[in-house]
Amino acid sequence: MPDKNDFEVTPWDVEGTVDYQRLIDKFGTERLDNTLKQRIFNVSGDDNLYLRRDFVFSHRDLDNILDSFEDGGEFYLYTGRAPSGKMHIGHIVSFYLTKWFQDAFNVNVYIQIPDDEKYWAKDTLFLSDIDTYAEQNIKQIAAVGFDPDKTFIFRNREYIGNMYDAAIKVSNEVNYSVAQSVFGFNSATNIGMSFYPALQMLPTFFEENQCLIPAAIDQDPYWRIQRDIAHKFDHDKTAAIHNKFIPALTGPEGKMSSSNPASAIMLEDDKETISNKVHSEAYSGGGDTLEEHREHGADLSVDVSYQWLHNLFLEDDNELRRIADEYSSGEMLTSEIKNILVDQLWSFLKAHQARKENADELVQQLMYNGSLANEMWNTDIELDT
Amino acid sequence: MPDKNDFEVTPWDVEGTVDYQRLIDKFGTERLDNTLKQRIFNVSGDDNLYLRRDFVFSHRDLDNILDSFEDGGEFYLYTGRAPSGKMHIGHIVSFYLTKWFQDAFNVNVYIQIPDDEKYWAKDTLFLSDIDTYAEQNIKQIAAVGFDPDKTFIFRNREYIGNMYDAAIKVSNEVNYSVAQSVFGFNSATNIGMSFYPALQMLPTFFEENQCLIPAAIDQDPYWRIQRDIAHKFDHDKTAAIHNKFIPALTGPEGKMSSSNPASAIMLEDDKETISNKVHSEAYSGGGDTLEEHREHGADLSVDVSYQWLHNLFLEDDNELRRIADEYSSGEMLTSEIKNILVDQLWSFLKAHQARKENADELVQQLMYNGSLANEMWNTDIELDT
Repeated sequence: MPDKNDFEVTPWDVEGTVDYQRLIDKFGTERLDNTLKQRIFNVSGDDNLYLRRDFVFSHRDLDNILDSFEDGGEFYLYTGRAPSGKMHIGHIVSFYLTKWFQDAFNVNVYIQIPDDEKYWAKDTLFLSDIDTYAEQNIKQIAAVGFDPDKTFIFRNREYIGNMYDAAIKVSNEVNYSVAQSVFGFNSATNIGMSFYPALQMLPTFFEENQCLIPAAIDQDPYWRIQRDIAHKFDHDKTAAIHNKFIPALTGPEGKMSSSNPASAIMLEDDKETISNKVHSEAYSGGGDTLEEHREHGADLSVDVSYQWLHNLFLEDDNELRRIADEYSSGEMLTSEIKNILVDQLWSFLKAHQARKENADELVQQLMYNGSLANEMWNTDIELDT
Repeated sequence: MPDKNDFEVTPWDVEGTVDYQRLIDKFGTERLDNTLKQRIFNVSGDDNLYLRRDFVFSHRDLDNILDSFEDGGEFYLYTGRAPSGKMHIGHIVSFYLTKWFQDAFNVNVYIQIPDDEKYWAKDTLFLSDIDTYAEQNIKQIAAVGFDPDKTFIFRNREYIGNMYDAAIKVSNEVNYSVAQSVFGFNSATNIGMSFYPALQMLPTFFEENQCLIPAAIDQDPYWRIQRDIAHKFDHDKTAAIHNKFIPALTGPEGKMSSSNPASAIMLEDDKETISNKVHSEAYSGGGDTLEEHREHGADLSVDVSYQWLHNLFLEDDNELRRIADEYSSGEMLTSEIKNILVDQLWSFLKAHQARKENADELVQQLMYNGSLANEMWNTDIELDT
């Protein structure tokens, strides 16, 4: 385990407690300040919780995107999901954020399912496993409610024929030493994995408009390379907004993992499972004994239930403030705040699960026959050099 | 320039005068001996000139292929052509050799047109240039006369959708240090080029039968990696036969190059052009003056006209012996042997050019609607792991 003051963020691992200001400094991004947030809220007429509560905390070139939009220009959104397992709350949140942006700005969304990358990255997965996860994951993503005529979900292995020319051009601009220094590739990295960054960068060139990527900051290295080579294709550097990692149920260090289900609320969990997990696993900032808790109250900064409510679920600012006051003073007990979280989680997941039950036709639209999907299947991605 | 006793052979460069026994030792291949040749001639009923005259000089596992074939087993042929320019005599000869094997053994032939690789390998080519060359080259290859129902010519960029799953699996088995040591990749190599070996290896897995590759020995590094990883897919190591480089018209060092047309007979040259090139450019082993020539005769080992006649064109052994005797004794003049070569070249190219004029429909069969091509377009290449 690394020292608590150390943390390591690459596209594959998050360890330690994350200091977001240090991340901004390290990655050279910009803090998402109130002025920018207010410009977004002015367009949308809705002060999104994820932005309001600083869950989205950093960006690149979002100001350009807004300048251009306010002048009548267009942009599009791009995000993705690597199908290496079942999805949990942490995975789906950035899709809800993306959908919010789609609704607010009425723009296209491209969602890449890199069903090639996880084969290269993980020794333990067969393509057939990845296929199963891809199918499940896509249905979960469809349940988020993207506009079926302005959204294209594509699997790399299925769409490669339309992307390959452009991938050849992008890969031609990235040499191994860059990939090595940015991603930590080494001599044992296989030649598939070393090619992959070209494919992840590719959708930033899908339209002539500028691309805006909502993603966790650990994916930033891909966009940094894109921003270095975009001018070769006479294209804008991609913009990005970065959300924080969602702490695992079991504690504020690291992020949730599907391979450790106790650490995560899975999208398929029912209310009882959620309640059991939260009450038995959720890391508490409360006192060790009732006495101690009543005397010192809870440490909100490490309390996972409070963090989740704050970052992701509890819309009402006044209600959140009341909970913060009562819990930090010791008046509210850990079991009580956990009950509140369970209710919020279940309210969110119940609606999501209901939409997922009816998502089959939507999946077809998002992947194949909605307006944008249909257009993309009739397009060979072109890239000028 | 390297010392005359040095030579360097990689898939991209041939320099110096080649010592073929040293190549066999260096690459660890086997000499194609008379016993093996006789077994091939027994099957075909035709003692092929390229084999008879040792133009084909080396192999890997050809004995296995013949053992299996004699027991009723099957195999298939695979070769290719990178479309980076117009084709010359040296390029087409290995296709005629491949066709001879197809006819002799009645087997399938797969011809890869890597219209991706040259973009990664050469800074000077646009994809549109490559497309033009690919179209021209494929028509030249079709003119060779492959069986339209047992041959599949495919362009990587067009066929990638059917190959990508298998390419993912092959690339997963090759790490960067292997690619680096085998191909000399370095930190400046782009991540497309570093992925490419997986695609060139891929057709060795197109059938469950063993693959036999007729190719110049400089492509052997790809097959060496294939032979190291084939067992992971429960597949035979690919077999290969290797032909010698054809000396440039201008001298026995190196090979012909389309970028130096004086050094090569191009497939589109007419008789007058051929005659002019041979008489003005063909490196002669004859004496510097008539007097000297009559006295010492010609050095056949460096005389390009003699080498071409010997390796590639003059079927009649007795006639070749007569020419060798007369020319090496000084009785025959350089201009006379050059006239013989011009006649042989033109006889070969005239027939080739005539077939090319009528190759449009054949191209369609070989690429799309012949039996094998049609079957391949309906196949996703599968690879068990």
